[in-house]
Amino acid sequence: MNPTPRFPHFLHGGDYNPDQWLDHPEILEDDVRLMKKAHVNAVSIGIFSWARLEPEEGVYDFSWMDQIIHRLWDNGIRVVLATPSGARPAWMAEKYPEVLRVDDHFQRRHFGERHNHCPSSPVYRQKVRQMDTALAERYASHPGVILWHISNEFSGDCRCPLCTARFREWLEKKYQTLDALNKAWYTDFWAMRYTAWSQIEPPSPVGQNSNLSMILDWRRFSTWMCRDFIEMEKEAVRAADPSIPVTANLMERFWDYDYFSLAESIDVVSWDCYPLWTGKDDDATACDYAMNHDIMRSLKNQPFLLMESTPSNVNWKPVNKLKHPGMHLLSSMQAVAHGSCSVQYFQWRQGRGNAEMFHGAVVSHAGRDDTRVFRDVTEVGEVLETLDPLLYAAPVETPKVCILYDWESRWAVEYAQTGLSHGMQYHDTVLAHYHAFWEQGIPVDFRDMREVTDLSGYSLVIAPQLFMFRGGIEQKLEEFVRSGGHLVMTYFSGIVDEHNLAFLTDTPHALTHVLGVREAEMDALFPDESNAAVTSDGTAYPVSGICSLLELEGAQAFAIYQDDFYKGTPAITRHTYGEGEAWYLGARLTGESLDAFYQQLAQSLGIPRALDCDLPHGVTAHARGRVVFLENYSGKDQTFFPEGHWTDLLRGLPFDGHLPASTVRILTRDE
Amino acid sequence: MNPTPRFPHFLHGGDYNPDQWLDHPEILEDDVRLMKKAHVNAVSIGIFSWARLEPEEGVYDFSWMDQIIHRLWDNGIRVVLATPSGARPAWMAEKYPEVLRVDDHFQRRHFGERHNHCPSSPVYRQKVRQMDTALAERYASHPGVILWHISNEFSGDCRCPLCTARFREWLEKKYQTLDALNKAWYTDFWAMRYTAWSQIEPPSPVGQNSNLSMILDWRRFSTWMCRDFIEMEKEAVRAADPSIPVTANLMERFWDYDYFSLAESIDVVSWDCYPLWTGKDDDATACDYAMNHDIMRSLKNQPFLLMESTPSNVNWKPVNKLKHPGMHLLSSMQAVAHGSCSVQYFQWRQGRGNAEMFHGAVVSHAGRDDTRVFRDVTEVGEVLETLDPLLYAAPVETPKVCILYDWESRWAVEYAQTGLSHGMQYHDTVLAHYHAFWEQGIPVDFRDMREVTDLSGYSLVIAPQLFMFRGGIEQKLEEFVRSGGHLVMTYFSGIVDEHNLAFLTDTPHALTHVLGVREAEMDALFPDESNAAVTSDGTAYPVSGICSLLELEGAQAFAIYQDDFYKGTPAITRHTYGEGEAWYLGARLTGESLDAFYQQLAQSLGIPRALDCDLPHGVTAHARGRVVFLENYSGKDQTFFPEGHWTDLLRGLPFDGHLPASTVRILTRDE
Amino acid sequence: MNPTPRFPHFLHGGDYNPDQWLDHPEILEDDVRLMKKAHVNAVSIGIFSWARLEPEEGVYDFSWMDQIIHRLWDNGIRVVLATPSGARPAWMAEKYPEVLRVDDHFQRRHFGERHNHCPSSPVYRQKVRQMDTALAERYASHPGVILWHISNEFSGDCRCPLCTARFREWLEKKYQTLDALNKAWYTDFWAMRYTAWSQIEPPSPVGQNSNLSMILDWRRFSTWMCRDFIEMEKEAVRAADPSIPVTANLMERFWDYDYFSLAESIDVVSWDCYPLWTGKDDDATACDYAMNHDIMRSLKNQPFLLMESTPSNVNWKPVNKLKHPGMHLLSSMQAVAHGSCSVQYFQWRQGRGNAEMFHGAVVSHAGRDDTRVFRDVTEVGEVLETLDPLLYAAPVETPKVCILYDWESRWAVEYAQTGLSHGMQYHDTVLAHYHAFWEQGIPVDFRDMREVTDLSGYSLVIAPQLFMFRGGIEQKLEEFVRSGGHLVMTYFSGIVDEHNLAFLTDTPHALTHVLGVREAEMDALFPDESNAAVTSDGTAYPVSGICSLLELEGAQAFAIYQDDFYKGTPAITRHTYGEGEAWYLGARLTGESLDAFYQQLAQSLGIPRALDCDLPHGVTAHARGRVVFLENYSGKDQTFFPEGHWTDLLRGLPFDGHLPASTVRILTRDE
Repeated sequence: MNPTPRFPHFLHGGDYNPDQWLDHPEILEDDVRLMKKAHVNAVSIGIFSWARLEPEEGVYDFSWMDQIIHRLWDNGIRVVLATPSGARPAWMAEKYPEVLRVDDHFQRRHFGERHNHCPSSPVYRQKVRQMDTALAERYASHPGVILWHISNEFSGDCRCPLCTARFREWLEKKYQTLDALNKAWYTDFWAMRYTAWSQIEPPSPVGQNSNLSMILDWRRFSTWMCRDFIEMEKEAVRAADPSIPVTANLMERFWDYDYFSLAESIDVVSWDCYPLWTGKDDDATACDYAMNHDIMRSLKNQPFLLMESTPSNVNWKPVNKLKHPGMHLLSSMQAVAHGSCSVQYFQWRQGRGNAEMFHGAVVSHAGRDDTRVFRDVTEVGEVLETLDPLLYAAPVETPKVCILYDWESRWAVEYAQTGLSHGMQYHDTVLAHYHAFWEQGIPVDFRDMREVTDLSGYSLVIAPQLFMFRGGIEQKLEEFVRSGGHLVMTYFSGIVDEHNLAFLTDTPHALTHVLGVREAEMDALFPDESNAAVTSDGTAYPVSGICSLLELEGAQAFAIYQDDFYKGTPAITRHTYGEGEAWYLGARLTGESLDAFYQQLAQSLGIPRALDCDLPHGVTAHARGRVVFLENYSGKDQTFFPEGHWTDLLRGLPFDGHLPASTVRILTRDE
Repeated sequence: MNPTPRFPHFLHGGDYNPDQWLDHPEILEDDVRLMKKAHVNAVSIGIFSWARLEPEEGVYDFSWMDQIIHRLWDNGIRVVLATPSGARPAWMAEKYPEVLRVDDHFQRRHFGERHNHCPSSPVYRQKVRQMDTALAERYASHPGVILWHISNEFSGDCRCPLCTARFREWLEKKYQTLDALNKAWYTDFWAMRYTAWSQIEPPSPVGQNSNLSMILDWRRFSTWMCRDFIEMEKEAVRAADPSIPVTANLMERFWDYDYFSLAESIDVVSWDCYPLWTGKDDDATACDYAMNHDIMRSLKNQPFLLMESTPSNVNWKPVNKLKHPGMHLLSSMQAVAHGSCSVQYFQWRQGRGNAEMFHGAVVSHAGRDDTRVFRDVTEVGEVLETLDPLLYAAPVETPKVCILYDWESRWAVEYAQTGLSHGMQYHDTVLAHYHAFWEQGIPVDFRDMREVTDLSGYSLVIAPQLFMFRGGIEQKLEEFVRSGGHLVMTYFSGIVDEHNLAFLTDTPHALTHVLGVREAEMDALFPDESNAAVTSDGTAYPVSGICSLLELEGAQAFAIYQDDFYKGTPAITRHTYGEGEAWYLGARLTGESLDAFYQQLAQSLGIPRALDCDLPHGVTAHARGRVVFLENYSGKDQTFFPEGHWTDLLRGLPFDGHLPASTVRILTRDE
Repeated sequence: MNPTPRFPHFLHGGDYNPDQWLDHPEILEDDVRLMKKAHVNAVSIGIFSWARLEPEEGVYDFSWMDQIIHRLWDNGIRVVLATPSGARPAWMAEKYPEVLRVDDHFQRRHFGERHNHCPSSPVYRQKVRQMDTALAERYASHPGVILWHISNEFSGDCRCPLCTARFREWLEKKYQTLDALNKAWYTDFWAMRYTAWSQIEPPSPVGQNSNLSMILDWRRFSTWMCRDFIEMEKEAVRAADPSIPVTANLMERFWDYDYFSLAESIDVVSWDCYPLWTGKDDDATACDYAMNHDIMRSLKNQPFLLMESTPSNVNWKPVNKLKHPGMHLLSSMQAVAHGSCSVQYFQWRQGRGNAEMFHGAVVSHAGRDDTRVFRDVTEVGEVLETLDPLLYAAPVETPKVCILYDWESRWAVEYAQTGLSHGMQYHDTVLAHYHAFWEQGIPVDFRDMREVTDLSGYSLVIAPQLFMFRGGIEQKLEEFVRSGGHLVMTYFSGIVDEHNLAFLTDTPHALTHVLGVREAEMDALFPDESNAAVTSDGTAYPVSGICSLLELEGAQAFAIYQDDFYKGTPAITRHTYGEGEAWYLGARLTGESLDAFYQQLAQSLGIPRALDCDLPHGVTAHARGRVVFLENYSGKDQTFFPEGHWTDLLRGLPFDGHLPASTVRILTRDE
């Protein structure tokens, strides 16, 4: 699957805002010269152009955009064309205040900033539809336009009367009756029972805020509302020519919407990727972003686009450091190794003013092309051209490891009021499990609990903190193990159903016979406390945060607690079930403990690695097609000889085993 | 005095919410079986049942409650019957928005959560009165109903126009004239002078917020308003049968209302007690809660009820740990030792959903009775039955030590803008003084400065940070010392009158001749600074936070400062006055300094202890009637032989001196 | 220039609030006796007296003020007469809510507190004008009235519809066209383009908040609005008698308004000075306040008044310590040394109630005159009388060192979203540069970038973080260096123009040829990171926070980086240009590095010091006229012999070289 059929190449370029430079025609001219010099072949335009495209209500001005697209096309540069709905013009806010969002204190925002329109406003939707239609009618047939970029970084929600009404409709459609809603929302708690749909309002710190089932539904509704908005825009841009794919640029560790669901409404996943390389602990950062890439790839189980990244530094983290030499290429290749078909930047040229004027860009205020950044960018452009044959390649083979990452369960577990929240950071917990595979160069898929999820192809399925069970996951996991799969599940799994209501059974719900264990109690450790899980051979895995007390129902105690009043009781269990095996981690293992645990497990299961050897610490390897990306985030020069003979693709020489700090080697195995 | 005349036994049970389980009749059946197994004899029902009791306006449904009360009675289980005013139903909020509270930014809240109604709304009061009347008419004559539980955990205040009007009326009644109010509120500061009652609004961060006299009156008004609401509910429930006592469940370290005042409006004090036992520093936690218990006992100088406690852990502290074996019994017996006539839990059975679904409960989601928690609870039930003869017993003898703890002075001292606030934490400061007695097993009373306070029976009266003098306390203290009493007063006492206006005299106001000293200046230490108060024999008491500079006017310098420019000047003074003696602590002694100071003093005064011997660190003893509760919070097994021969009541054996970690021994002295 | 022509003496006194004591005539009587005893000769009255002066609308009552002024005059005490506009009376807020300020969430405040009126309300302005006129007509001709004190501590802004309208008018006057505004505000970013003036609202967290050009204009508008208000009051008080000067009391490290601009609207600068002397690091505190004094002197390049200071401690810092013996005189003389013509206190007598009741005052609640504070104050009064001849003296000679301190650049650099903000603390950064001169006893002027600024008299000009260039500063600096001056400029200078738009050139803008260097990239260090700038002789200056990467264009590398990937590249450069020399600090030197750097530089330039010798650490010297103030903040007794023979002015003896801790010696050189 190729994200941009009209231009089947790796994209290299980024956000381009010529509308900020219309009074500098010489700069616009120079941009094209510089783009070609930097091997840029695609840019995103129009993202925040509404005020320029429709300067007054109903009056459109496409002249400048015509000119830009024309000039780019003439120079071989493609266009990712954005709809401008990410920020509405001032005249619209003034005339139709309903387009402005209402915040969680029920205050209507005033005009300003971005990404804060009301998603259900009929006026806003009509204006967006008209704009999108006009853009599509004018540009969809242009051969240089290769992708629709719908709005920008969707996020948040609105609590205006219109959205409130849509929330009620959505609830009524979902539950049919108030009795069903009251049951699902457990409204007999604190006398919350609703007797009319009109009594329901969005959650708010000044209203209803602690009904855990309701706030979960509000997240689902927000996801639905965002999809509904995207579908509306998609319909508008496709009317003129349905052949151009549609994307929306997503964000890391995103909370507000269920991205697995949202991805169903777009053709191509793209995302905005902003690691902070500090020169220290860059391996941890690399693993973090490798997981982000893998999640993005997993959303549709397809290659994706890196839609934004910084060519130098960002301006919005507390401390923004320069990239060390080599790091720009390494970081860009990481994305490609994990499935990206592009390296795009925010942004092409630094703006003169406002909030992002010091965000890194390919071309800085002084307009120079003799900068370190410009040279780094040019190098990436050249390498991408070399890699073009990889574009259609999938990873070496289908990953044998699957981690369950479920937005709804994540919401539920982080909303849960347990007094354990410091151990419940869902994303970071999953990341700790992922790390064990990343450092071994083992590819990982992420799946959620929608009905479409199929676990049958995997050898190992991991369910960290799978607090909620939904979509029949119990049955899938039971069948997976019975058929020979290996399951690792942790503490605090299978506690609530899809309504966030506790199962009235032993937990993990419906899987105690598969795991051979039930969770009896759950202890919390202070940040400065620790325990250990000790195996029969004396290995002690450090434990922090959470110690569940387990009752064996057939499982074997693989490790027992070392301390506290439950010393000697099971901490980790294993249980043969059917053809497979099910592990339960009652103890919260820390990073290195998990690494050790999974290294042993992966080895015993014979799960293949990108390179069949142990990698130095801070070095990882990822295969895409025939190519292996060998990445050094250790901060040190490494010497490393993989088995067999390998060619360094970029140098056209045999790989000599030298891997300087902050470099990537792109290798192919000699036949 | 027995809190529940209809059922003269220790209560054991807790909050029971059958209305959350009406669609699970089998669970309701099983509850009774489990209660009997756990030796539960009393449960609280109806606390948040309004939406079930009055599902639509004016339509009552008591059928489910009839059934529950009937079933409980049939099985020998009594009912503490709550009025449901702690949370109003959604239909009421929708139809009468005035029942919703207005916050301190003058925003009306929306429907949701609990404990946030407007206390003066005529509509709300009418609805509450009708509901309470209906409950009382139906259930007051039922022999199983033993106590009224008015609303739940009263707290907070409302700034709506109705409450604003009542505030003005209350002020007008109090001050009669604006001139008097202006004088009391010192309104010539910052041009705050009011020339019409209508100009006065509640304090608010967006309005008047720093008039220290006004915000003190707002706290008094809030107390009055809460009492007025309680009186209204009390009148309603008593109309049918005035023989059932009335309680309201109070909270620890409570700030909003003056509990000494509020307690005048209820028959029985009950409270919700949530220590966090961490397995570390449990002795500090135990002392903290011992003081809470003693305050609750002191409010009406009567036995009280432990209305809520957790049988396992809570879910709302940052880290909620499991109780170590033994700790549940120990913690429960602590309450009894300090005067409780019950051990009640929140809650009987864990709810399936919402904010408190993971709060500890006797019966967990899985409904098991073979859990550690269930066994612990059952043990407490059995022990309480054994202790029944103690029910009417008062502590061994009237305490000879009284600490002044005054809500109004506490408000004033913590509102005071002194730059000394880190040393002014009123409750913790009092706790430091209390600790010295707790660890010696010496019983303590708390009294405030209302006119009813009588100090004549005590040997030692302690006045820590008694910033405000009111109710003629100067005269009482002068007479107390003159008649032979011993007074210990600290820095920053007797500074303001009841209007929070500084006395225009030397301080402590009107007591400098009794103390033989005046406070000239007050220095503040940074948290990392210290000084010491050194006695003539060279003992150095560490000092932190505050060093007052004292001018002797007849007193003797018991200790002098060791450091800073006031080195050598008096830090602690003593003065013989009449038949008694008055001490002044100009220096803020720390925990261990206070312990040493008071140990010496108590010994010299011959103040009796529960056991006439020194106790190991972390162990304390409290007598109730003929029984001594020996409690081990040291986290270690202790061996300890009190003088004389003692019987271990629960074991029916001679006490062998062994006191394992986290245990209580209930001892009676052999005759 | 003498701030108070009607009374050409050092003022000694402070805020006096007799209106809080009208019901205590005996106290008002005693005040005069105590003032005379304490050598008080001038007090400020009426600051918050509106509710007493106009108890109901249009009804004035000056009787009490007549009596006070009369009594003071009779006893030789002058009056600084305040206009009461710092707090409006309750009746006005009730009748005309428009006088109340609207906050940044567009909520109208309620009555209460102070300094929170709407500055553009016609009603408020009319009431203020009437009040001021009445005061002036009644008192301007009184010989005891020596100065107008306009309102109090102006601060903040208002977002009401009236202020919004004035903001639009101000913008329209400034920019003439929306096109010009859109260009200056860079509104093509995020579709912010305005197409009608009516679309513009004040910045707000719930509206437009990140347009950096707009929020800068809002600060300029707020400054203008405050000046406009002051001008209105000034006009009113001057109508009766224009001979009395006008002041407004300013504050330290003030952010809201540009004080260089505001000072143009007052005749005399006065300020409220509240150092916290802790007995530790008092030298750092002293330097901090020395800089504040020098800024206040520089605002109008004239002597100023210390309008408020505390005779003991304040009540609003987290920990307020007592002053060590000697510190009150030392701290008061510091002000005089730096150009103050007064030592005034807040306040004369402690109030009985409200927020400032525990603020230090000359007379405490008990009314004693035998206190340490009263004696300290009396001593200052006596010394000031001795120093009277100094009143008209300027510092020894015009300072040869000028530091550029520009409010607009400060706003811009702290608003800037760079990810470098921890290194951008403008005031503290300037303070680090100032420190080097303070500890050498070298006087410093501060200048901003208004057109009036003239650099021609200086030997050394320092431009720390001069982010914005405006007012032709490039030309002035070029000419300054060309003509023989020495310039030190740091990283992150010359980045934006007056609209906060980046220059599209190399930076520092238009000065790269003068400095011989351009800034290529800028790296940020985490707080726990460091680097060093190493000179050719091996001296290593520690570097923190910021490391700019420099490209030499003619300059010489004076120091190079020691670490990181840019090791060996230039960190500090020097460049001869014309007759002068220009230094560029690409690295952020820390305190001691800067001290060493500037000590060397000042020495090589032969910049004169108050005493021609090295001073002990923590001791400084400042000359005023013929007198040298030698100040010891080291916390230790010092022995120190300056060259030559000196007389200790206060003792009338030869200076013996002894300088006890926390003392000042006032020296004159023997001829």
